[in-house]
Amino acid sequence: MTRHYNFCAGPAALPEAVLERAQDELLDYQGRGLSVMEMSHRSPEFVAIAERAEQDLRDLLSVPDDYRVLFLQGGATMQFAMVPYNLLGQGGTPNYLHTGIWAKKAIAEAEHLGGAHIAASSEANRLTAVPRPDDIDLSDDAAYLHYTANETIGGLAFDYVPKMASPQGGGLPIVCDMSSSILSGPIDVSDYGVIYAGAQKNIGPAGLTVVIVHEDLLGRGRSDMPGLFSYRALAEAGSMINTPPTYAWYLAGLVFQWLKEDVGGLAAMETINRRKADKLYAAIDGSDFYTNPIAPLNRSLMNIPFVLADDGLNQSFLDEAEAVGLLNLKGHRSVGGMRASLYNAVPEKAVDTLIDFMTDFERRRG
Amino acid sequence: MTRHYNFCAGPAALPEAVLERAQDELLDYQGRGLSVMEMSHRSPEFVAIAERAEQDLRDLLSVPDDYRVLFLQGGATMQFAMVPYNLLGQGGTPNYLHTGIWAKKAIAEAEHLGGAHIAASSEANRLTAVPRPDDIDLSDDAAYLHYTANETIGGLAFDYVPKMASPQGGGLPIVCDMSSSILSGPIDVSDYGVIYAGAQKNIGPAGLTVVIVHEDLLGRGRSDMPGLFSYRALAEAGSMINTPPTYAWYLAGLVFQWLKEDVGGLAAMETINRRKADKLYAAIDGSDFYTNPIAPLNRSLMNIPFVLADDGLNQSFLDEAEAVGLLNLKGHRSVGGMRASLYNAVPEKAVDTLIDFMTDFERRRG
Repeated sequence: MTRHYNFCAGPAALPEAVLERAQDELLDYQGRGLSVMEMSHRSPEFVAIAERAEQDLRDLLSVPDDYRVLFLQGGATMQFAMVPYNLLGQGGTPNYLHTGIWAKKAIAEAEHLGGAHIAASSEANRLTAVPRPDDIDLSDDAAYLHYTANETIGGLAFDYVPKMASPQGGGLPIVCDMSSSILSGPIDVSDYGVIYAGAQKNIGPAGLTVVIVHEDLLGRGRSDMPGLFSYRALAEAGSMINTPPTYAWYLAGLVFQWLKEDVGGLAAMETINRRKADKLYAAIDGSDFYTNPIAPLNRSLMNIPFVLADDGLNQSFLDEAEAVGLLNLKGHRSVGGMRASLYNAVPEKAVDTLIDFMTDFERRRG
Repeated sequence: MTRHYNFCAGPAALPEAVLERAQDELLDYQGRGLSVMEMSHRSPEFVAIAERAEQDLRDLLSVPDDYRVLFLQGGATMQFAMVPYNLLGQGGTPNYLHTGIWAKKAIAEAEHLGGAHIAASSEANRLTAVPRPDDIDLSDDAAYLHYTANETIGGLAFDYVPKMASPQGGGLPIVCDMSSSILSGPIDVSDYGVIYAGAQKNIGPAGLTVVIVHEDLLGRGRSDMPGLFSYRALAEAGSMINTPPTYAWYLAGLVFQWLKEDVGGLAAMETINRRKADKLYAAIDGSDFYTNPIAPLNRSLMNIPFVLADDGLNQSFLDEAEAVGLLNLKGHRSVGGMRASLYNAVPEKAVDTLIDFMTDFERRRG
């Protein structure tokens, strides 16, 4: 068996220690005589797995007691619909910040389901910097403000939480799509009304979505939403209105344990992530051959797109990289070029190897 | 490692050969240097896995070319909403057959989303027999007829497909929740407009839902449905509007390969399933201690509930069964008693061992 370095934007690399443990337990979970996949979601064994996963996630993110943690299906894309359904039962207009392809998809779904106000957009600067607080123009009836913490495709990240006072007085719920940055470092959950994240970057395998929602927002749903959309009903059922994605939940739990025990928590993880990203940005900026267009303040720690000075060398770059075990460096089909995703599970050694390869490629072909 | 016999109603036992192969490939899929969990859903490797799974499923069920096969999230419960959203865009009333707890949930969701007509119900016979064709009273504006092929909790199965002429003339789309009986034997897909099934019984792990839908039904959706609900959009995107549950899809593919190659197809599978179920029903009927209440014509091959003559012995029965490696025989919390689920992956030897245990228990304690 050879494990290569995997820079995929998602589904992404998982910690090798997690995969090894999953492999070890695959046919027989801790002597119970069956796989986790084969357990009733209501069995004491699986309930213990599920509860431990939630507690470990709460510990990692210091989730306050008045927030509920949900383990759902459908990906962030399903949340694009579930958020407006759950938060607009008392009227108002949902406000969105447009910073890239994922923000745009969230906006399109909100518009489809009733309307949305774009409170600020990065389009004027070609998606290379996020709006500053002063640029944000809320609608008078704003029901919440939604933003995308890290644009996976553009490699554009917020350097601050856009907390805003509500035009009607009081706090405005901040809703954050944190799919590609959650668990990359500490956050203050109390800044948010709703955090959601597809699992397939820093949490676990595809097919699981984590939602962290303040209890005060559980009673604001539209009466016409599908039953399985209701955060309140899901919270009351412990995310088990119906059968949850049990194996993905278990694997997420193993990732949380790895973060707590092997890595030492999110502050330690952030230090490693920053070191990895700083190295790669330095290599890009120090070269005449590679370019990253994002404003330094908003450069993503997780997804680093870059282009070659000569587009005609793209395929050679990818082929040669793959030949030395550096996988999935191709940029998203919508933007082209390259992208290295440096999620938690991508080891620093992978980044070092990538930089060595890039330097060598530039020397030979640049 | 010891593998026990697992009679869980779902998530259910998986074929040991499938688990062994998954274990073997977990960290390195066929020399690619990464896990299937870590692959982009748009990579050539994963696309090949996904396409082969669909083809194998099509082969097993002889799915005609004018049907689309979707691999989705959310379980059958999400389909309770997606079906009316997708089929009622041109008006009409959805018609349902009520045969038990799962049918009732589907009806409740359709009522919540706009209304439903119950065309026949098994309540009068206390959910022990399905309605006969003459009992089915469609509404004049019936848009489709929905039924539950096999009630997982009640152990009640249809012995026929309730194909009905539409009151408006032409064929009436038949929609079937086949979650707990799909792949247990051959079916004629052309009888149906929509077939859907949560994976966690006969297909794979929880978190995957298979939908088989006739192309003619793809254009009938309500304009107000969430974007991710649209069968048409999902079909056009090859079930990849967003990241699908890739690992569950892969495991389902391994189960399909097992059914084709190890078992020899669905006719062979049905022969085995019938032999397993016949044995257990014979043991129950031949005893004065165990009882199954279902009409012989409608007895499920997959889920066999039974009660003990003395309820006070339930816990002893379960404890002693577990001690000899017979797991998850407790009946659903809503009905009590026992239930043995004999899905495809439950080997005949498991049924033989269960019957021996039941006979011995009756002799000692009955």
